[in-house]
Amino acid sequence: MATDRFTTIREQRCFGGVQGTYSHSSAATGTTMRLSVFQPPQIVEGPRPALIYLSGLTCTEENFTTKAGAQRYAAERGLVLIAPDTSPRGEGVADDPAYDLGQGAGFYVDATERPWAPHYRMYSYIVDELPGLLAGRFALRPGALGITGHSMGGHGALVIGLRNPGRFRSISALAPIVAPSRVPWGEKALGSYLGEARGVWSPYDACALVEARGRGGAPPLAEILIDQGEADDFLETQLRPELFAEACAAAGQPLRVRRHQGYDHSYYFIASFIGDHIRHHADALGALGG
Amino acid sequence: MATDRFTTIREQRCFGGVQGTYSHSSAATGTTMRLSVFQPPQIVEGPRPALIYLSGLTCTEENFTTKAGAQRYAAERGLVLIAPDTSPRGEGVADDPAYDLGQGAGFYVDATERPWAPHYRMYSYIVDELPGLLAGRFALRPGALGITGHSMGGHGALVIGLRNPGRFRSISALAPIVAPSRVPWGEKALGSYLGEARGVWSPYDACALVEARGRGGAPPLAEILIDQGEADDFLETQLRPELFAEACAAAGQPLRVRRHQGYDHSYYFIASFIGDHIRHHADALGALGG
Repeated sequence: MATDRFTTIREQRCFGGVQGTYSHSSAATGTTMRLSVFQPPQIVEGPRPALIYLSGLTCTEENFTTKAGAQRYAAERGLVLIAPDTSPRGEGVADDPAYDLGQGAGFYVDATERPWAPHYRMYSYIVDELPGLLAGRFALRPGALGITGHSMGGHGALVIGLRNPGRFRSISALAPIVAPSRVPWGEKALGSYLGEARGVWSPYDACALVEARGRGGAPPLAEILIDQGEADDFLETQLRPELFAEACAAAGQPLRVRRHQGYDHSYYFIASFIGDHIRHHADALGALGG
Repeated sequence: MATDRFTTIREQRCFGGVQGTYSHSSAATGTTMRLSVFQPPQIVEGPRPALIYLSGLTCTEENFTTKAGAQRYAAERGLVLIAPDTSPRGEGVADDPAYDLGQGAGFYVDATERPWAPHYRMYSYIVDELPGLLAGRFALRPGALGITGHSMGGHGALVIGLRNPGRFRSISALAPIVAPSRVPWGEKALGSYLGEARGVWSPYDACALVEARGRGGAPPLAEILIDQGEADDFLETQLRPELFAEACAAAGQPLRVRRHQGYDHSYYFIASFIGDHIRHHADALGALGG
């Protein structure tokens, strides 16, 4: 591909910075991908740290951007916010009528199975393509990149952060799927995208990754922050943060899990706690004092 | 009507308070109306001041609630947020294919013309019905009610506040229509709902109301706050805040208009400045220190 055909769909002033929506041709997915980027006001003075936010099932780049209220906190700390889409999309891209498979449900994996393999390469897109693509177009401080996400996107953030500590210096998640190999959403998605042989699932299972790091004697990463609502309808069936807490404890990985009485799985939960996540990453990435 | 059939559609934890969506039978409109109410965490200790936010064209009770990020500020100051719908809706309610007339575009007037008169009574709904309805169901501090809004809703807030200073103790607006008698949106709506005889429009024209208060020697109200984006596509054709500034200056009505370079008409503009509006009302209504 000769060019990434990076296109500005719109840019709007927000909290003294610029909220933009863009599209580009992705080498990883072979499709046109959309993403949103918030540039804080401080970026006019020089490169800023950045945080990638991965969204959950059914979302596009827009949900977090319009509903989380995160720009206010990012503007305070001088952090760039990057929100990609959740899957490849468009004609010729495989899909499924269910909300939890196919378009809107990429699960941040590189699919190996038909019909998904040609385009469903969200892992490579986020890890290998996006940081370089954006570094060439926005004033991002080299090496100062964190990752977070919600639900399916929390799974993506944990997996990507745990596998690439040299590229992502801080990790957090809101109501993440932590053990996709052991819950229905994950079993369906990993089985479809990677095949039914469960041995190949573990690189996409945050609990398995932490366990492997512990067994291999890898040094612990910086403390991971997880927030979880106690009134989340998916808590016991799909999310199961206690499994990740057990894995981190066994592996010596610092983890802070906060459980919040009465909060559900919605953007009202995300909006209530995203400020703490932005502070977590800003502190780790050397952003401005808060 | 024997009962208002007040129904909870959903309630969700948000910033330590409760974000709810409700429906009820309205005596004013003769329809089922929806609205959203945010109760701040302090409400468990006793009645709190409240702020009504009136939305703009095409909106429902949901836009402000999900996109403005206002709950954070309201939680800090202990303010109840009330977001009504923008018109009556449903089968048997007159409508128009245009976005700026009919359902979603009630303009906060009591219509007198066919086919609108039977249900389009948003002025009476907001002024006479809503405060009492909510006072009976939520812990609202008597007499501590403010009003604000965006665009068409800013028009509604200014008109309702100026005509009812005993009921609404504080007024503000974001990118309001201030002179509907002199701009296309207003001329179309007032002409349709009230008829083409312009003499009956002035009770729904904020500029005309301020001028009338000045002529009548009415005492000035507390300072009104208006925010306006300089990159708002509707600034010169539909909004024209300079007309309201001139009317307030002539009438001796304190007014603070802030014009913001680069901001447009969207919820990114609203989100960037709603915190200042909540502080404006909280200060006037004796809410908690900020």
